[in-house]
Amino acid sequence: MTVFKCPGFLASAVEAGIKYKNRKDLGLLFSTVPATAAGVFTTNRIKAAPVLLDMELIRDGNARAILVNSGNANCFTGDQGYKDALMICRATANALQIPWEEVLVSSTGVIGHAMPMDVIVPAIPKLAKSLYSDGFKDLAQAMMTTDTVPKIVQKTVFIQNQPVTLCGVAKGSGMIRPDMATMLSFIATDARISPTLLRKLLLQVTHQTYNRITIDGDTSTNDTVFILSNGVSGVAIGMGSPEEKLFQAALYEVCQELCHLLIKDGEGATKVVEVLIKGAATDRDAKKIAETIAHSPLVKTAFYGEDANWGRIIAAAGRAHVLFNPLLIDLFFDNVLIVKKGCFLGKEAEEIAEKILKKNEFTITLDLHMGAYAYSMLTCDFSIDYIKINADYRT
Amino acid sequence: MTVFKCPGFLASAVEAGIKYKNRKDLGLLFSTVPATAAGVFTTNRIKAAPVLLDMELIRDGNARAILVNSGNANCFTGDQGYKDALMICRATANALQIPWEEVLVSSTGVIGHAMPMDVIVPAIPKLAKSLYSDGFKDLAQAMMTTDTVPKIVQKTVFIQNQPVTLCGVAKGSGMIRPDMATMLSFIATDARISPTLLRKLLLQVTHQTYNRITIDGDTSTNDTVFILSNGVSGVAIGMGSPEEKLFQAALYEVCQELCHLLIKDGEGATKVVEVLIKGAATDRDAKKIAETIAHSPLVKTAFYGEDANWGRIIAAAGRAHVLFNPLLIDLFFDNVLIVKKGCFLGKEAEEIAEKILKKNEFTITLDLHMGAYAYSMLTCDFSIDYIKINADYRT
Repeated sequence: MTVFKCPGFLASAVEAGIKYKNRKDLGLLFSTVPATAAGVFTTNRIKAAPVLLDMELIRDGNARAILVNSGNANCFTGDQGYKDALMICRATANALQIPWEEVLVSSTGVIGHAMPMDVIVPAIPKLAKSLYSDGFKDLAQAMMTTDTVPKIVQKTVFIQNQPVTLCGVAKGSGMIRPDMATMLSFIATDARISPTLLRKLLLQVTHQTYNRITIDGDTSTNDTVFILSNGVSGVAIGMGSPEEKLFQAALYEVCQELCHLLIKDGEGATKVVEVLIKGAATDRDAKKIAETIAHSPLVKTAFYGEDANWGRIIAAAGRAHVLFNPLLIDLFFDNVLIVKKGCFLGKEAEEIAEKILKKNEFTITLDLHMGAYAYSMLTCDFSIDYIKINADYRT
Repeated sequence: MTVFKCPGFLASAVEAGIKYKNRKDLGLLFSTVPATAAGVFTTNRIKAAPVLLDMELIRDGNARAILVNSGNANCFTGDQGYKDALMICRATANALQIPWEEVLVSSTGVIGHAMPMDVIVPAIPKLAKSLYSDGFKDLAQAMMTTDTVPKIVQKTVFIQNQPVTLCGVAKGSGMIRPDMATMLSFIATDARISPTLLRKLLLQVTHQTYNRITIDGDTSTNDTVFILSNGVSGVAIGMGSPEEKLFQAALYEVCQELCHLLIKDGEGATKVVEVLIKGAATDRDAKKIAETIAHSPLVKTAFYGEDANWGRIIAAAGRAHVLFNPLLIDLFFDNVLIVKKGCFLGKEAEEIAEKILKKNEFTITLDLHMGAYAYSMLTCDFSIDYIKINADYRT
């Protein structure tokens, strides 16, 4: 069994009893030495209290700890919610004996309910005492809501002949769409990176990964990605250096793998589908069509039914408010061409395509032949279980 | 039992066997005297062959017949699809002994399959022979795909002390969203109206009705609304006259009732929900928020689960890319206030709201207190049956 760890970082989780009993619901990530930090947050106009607090805390580019709870989003909870977030931040700082400005806080769960401070605050000292280097898996468990599996990805790359580690955790698995697509994801690295570069790298990679996945098209109020870098590896990553390229590639891989895990564990999902738009006249056109297809309930239910209903894909592309010539388009299911220059290739092609739809993972490629731009997104199917999970969520 | 009819109009349907046996799938509406006509069509970039043909035919503002089939959309069927639509148009004109330019054609069903001309063309003379004044119900049946009930609305209004009749039919019930929301709807009236005024009235009313409903957010490739007016009542409606106001009100009522029937019969729907946004700074803001809430899978599954999960409604409003102040908003379920000036009113209000969610029809009102603009939409819930219907549609 893989052990997930990152030099200079500790993690832990406890069962505080926020919403359910006998379930880890409070987690902590801690750097034993000072660390730089960067974050990206939900674009939702309604932002949860911890997001509003973190947006202030992250400005100076330094943070050593992230406290996360599941079971309650602390969102739309007014002044009290903000005060609660701040009190959690301070209680964590006390337990860790660090300044409170270095503690970030994240919440996920139901919107609009007051935080059960009576169970959270007393659990924090215990959480701090439980910190250990193998705690990433506990942390990933404590973040879970409707997720069925914890999500952790670890990579080691050699930079300047030294091993540099990145270890990321994430949670889904509903209310997922760009921008930001993830609900929560935290990445720890022992590289040494300035706050400015860390912010630049995180934004770039978020744009290429978390912002290109969708489960149900609903952007959460709590979406947050954090990265902390503590320099324990002794490897410094300079802006514009060859090391930056190596580190960026590793960060991309970690985030992309986390995104893949998020979609695979999407609420009720049985398929992971890449929607690839090629040959668009502009980047924006490619993105609009990819998003429209990736969000279409009719396309997603056809995936669930393992039905190569290419007409729904074409119809979704057509309503994306993008100008294209229907008589130029090619459509592939994996490498099987089913529509060529706007002509359906017939029952035989469709039968081969049906076989591809039976796979757990496949790619839909739509080539518009209008230009040189491409865009790719990850989506999942829409299943009966998605409805069951979300009709019963609060009961 | 109500008998649906409109003076000077005949209708009929036959079982041609286009996709299923023993099911009416070819319908005809015919004015016994010359009539004016107007149409509005899907905004989807991929338009079905009959839509492309009708867009040409409708230009002169005259038409006497509409031929409609279910079971095949004649969409993305290339040159042959267009030729087929034209041949159906001509065969109908021959059977009715009128010029082919006066026959409109509509199709609904699966995208991308060639029209079974061998069963359609021979059925047309029989269809023409079956025309009778009480045939509107047969026509409404022939248009059905996943619809569970035929949809007909009839109104008689007195204008200049004369009865003027409007009789409309519509079909849903998936791939429904603005703009255009309906798949197919045809309205017959015995008023005498110029093509210019008819077009103006149809556009106005479509904007207020068909463009404000959603079932699944997928705009169809075949959406069409037609109105035919044959003047048999002897009542002329002049542009800018008091009669225009009376007629417009009646047309609005017919279309609004058809929309209500469409949503009520939405695929798998168990609830009809009005989403009303008030107090928006602009008309566009109100519309964007209404559409985002009305399309949100998380909101719609909560409706299905009869869960007053107001947090999802607020979160959907927040992601609509509209600027508003969360601390000003009020949220109602029918007349029950659950969020006041950005504050959740507590468990007690939520319990009363839960009772409203158990009703088959209710209204969600979100007041932004940012200005004077309002927008209303009709939506339905997202149920397990929606997934079942659409996962299995082609099998």
